[in-house]
Amino acid sequence: MTLYASTPLTDLLTALFAEAGATAEVAETTASILVEGDLLGHHTHGVKLAKGYLNDLKAGNACGDHRQLALTESSPVAAMIDGHYVLGPYLVTRALAHARQAADGFGIGIVTLKRSHHIACLAAYLRPLVEQGLVPIVLSSDPAVASVAPYGGTTPVYTPDPLAIGIPGREHPLLIDVSMSSITNGTVNKTRAEGGKLAHPAILTNRGTVSDDPEDFFTTPPGSILPLGGQAFGHKGFALGLMVEALTSALGGFGRKDAPTQWGASATVMVIDPARFGGTQAFLDETDFLARQCLDSERVDPEVPVRLPGQSGLAKRQRYLRDGIPLPGDVVDALREAVAGSSLAEGDLSRSLGL
Amino acid sequence: MTLYASTPLTDLLTALFAEAGATAEVAETTASILVEGDLLGHHTHGVKLAKGYLNDLKAGNACGDHRQLALTESSPVAAMIDGHYVLGPYLVTRALAHARQAADGFGIGIVTLKRSHHIACLAAYLRPLVEQGLVPIVLSSDPAVASVAPYGGTTPVYTPDPLAIGIPGREHPLLIDVSMSSITNGTVNKTRAEGGKLAHPAILTNRGTVSDDPEDFFTTPPGSILPLGGQAFGHKGFALGLMVEALTSALGGFGRKDAPTQWGASATVMVIDPARFGGTQAFLDETDFLARQCLDSERVDPEVPVRLPGQSGLAKRQRYLRDGIPLPGDVVDALREAVAGSSLAEGDLSRSLGL
Repeated sequence: MTLYASTPLTDLLTALFAEAGATAEVAETTASILVEGDLLGHHTHGVKLAKGYLNDLKAGNACGDHRQLALTESSPVAAMIDGHYVLGPYLVTRALAHARQAADGFGIGIVTLKRSHHIACLAAYLRPLVEQGLVPIVLSSDPAVASVAPYGGTTPVYTPDPLAIGIPGREHPLLIDVSMSSITNGTVNKTRAEGGKLAHPAILTNRGTVSDDPEDFFTTPPGSILPLGGQAFGHKGFALGLMVEALTSALGGFGRKDAPTQWGASATVMVIDPARFGGTQAFLDETDFLARQCLDSERVDPEVPVRLPGQSGLAKRQRYLRDGIPLPGDVVDALREAVAGSSLAEGDLSRSLGL
Repeated sequence: MTLYASTPLTDLLTALFAEAGATAEVAETTASILVEGDLLGHHTHGVKLAKGYLNDLKAGNACGDHRQLALTESSPVAAMIDGHYVLGPYLVTRALAHARQAADGFGIGIVTLKRSHHIACLAAYLRPLVEQGLVPIVLSSDPAVASVAPYGGTTPVYTPDPLAIGIPGREHPLLIDVSMSSITNGTVNKTRAEGGKLAHPAILTNRGTVSDDPEDFFTTPPGSILPLGGQAFGHKGFALGLMVEALTSALGGFGRKDAPTQWGASATVMVIDPARFGGTQAFLDETDFLARQCLDSERVDPEVPVRLPGQSGLAKRQRYLRDGIPLPGDVVDALREAVAGSSLAEGDLSRSLGL
């Protein structure tokens, strides 16, 4: 399997976004966040997305100029960004930087973001802040998409609605990135494309029965993705989904009621500084203690150790930075198509990557 | 079934707490929050708890004097409370009032609370703030208890770790109160006391198999409660549990590493004011729109409508305020025992309630 070095990969994406009209800031940040997704092993939400982002830039459905965004501070700790569909990785990074500055002064900062373009892999934003002893939180919904039904219903109404949080720790910093549904749209699409069945029955058919066949999601009327908790405890996942919808689309004041049709996102980010609460050292002590207790747990399967959120991703990251990233075939194909549509096809960057 | 009017019930509890040494503020607030739990239908986390609270007050394991708490502001929006085991309903109410004041000025306020006594029903705190168009959030863990195992393990390490959030809406304000585990310790205990089986297999035995028998929780070594998501998607519930642990015990700097043994809680509250973001009207419009979409969904079971979080509780509350609360037998028994241990046994309050 070919391994792709992260630096030329980032440089290539930066060049592609720049060629499609993105400013240097937007191009570089978006490229870095996409590659970071693959470094953490989230290949459905990394470099693979570049092709769609480039298409939307060219079609005018995404914006590459960061000067188009409008940031309004309503207090030293609270701000709103109207993203005007600037590429999401830039907007979220900018929102986190703003929230981080607020947290420096006040212990917490919060920024809500409306009319963002797609924001890629939520886990990809966490590490830099976690390494500084801060707690970043990112919540997201896409008001243009409905794929999860309310508990007790079959009509898809909202999105998987991921929540990500980074938790500083000395030995095991935690990178959490989970959706409030059983699985994501990405998993449904990928499994369907491969012609396979889901690992678990996570689809609710339009007749209200449970299925592991992704085709049952694409019926008329459509099926839906089961909320986290499934048929027995899905009222909890449903409630958590409504929480994410409220803290993103409702808080930003732009959401499903506005019936957007563009690929996009409503997002809210927070940064919390433990130094302003019980203290950074006590925070790290508690994380380390709990992480150790989890890892020391007796195992369900003696061969399979307990794994902390982010543990596998961070180990991959270290390995991939050193050896290169084993991009799956569908990612390389998407990247090739993106390169083919640009003037970079014959360039040094593409050649050095063997594209 | 006897119905109990909420006002004399609150007065009786207030008198009981006062007799046990609580200051008027602590006695009244705690009584109101416990009764509010029953008004919302959460009978395991309402008036039934009074007996244990009174016992702990008398034994010196809980404190009834609000002047013992220490509130430290680290910024105009961030504060810490060392609760010194003052009764939790008072501490959480106080923390929310502080956060609310911060939100008035800055759009958000956050208070973390360590060494609280038990904090009762999280949903009981939400309504007053929600009715003012604010978004209250309450997170809680109990570092003295371990009942949930990490995903992939069998050793219980942390607690169900509930998260509550109130979401303002014109027609259907949402009161969300869910644990990050499949079920709570309360449900396990109650089902065991009744000698029954759980509605769903939510226990992981100490051998790593799934069970609906609450006895499998009380073995040596102990069983555990499955994280939200169960065996297929429990990595998500596990991650969310770690999030609540971090935002409560780690943030407050006091948790499992300190090995507390008292009945207590670590909690963090936030209040967010949508007026400082996309605007209160836009927030309400979005909540109303999404709520209507959920309620209009096709049903899995034609006889069972979709229910929004808090919808059933708020309907009960309205009915119970008018007609009285149908307290279950075990709650009345616990209340009788609490009254019997006091000088109020022969008083007008007890008599008026028929205790």
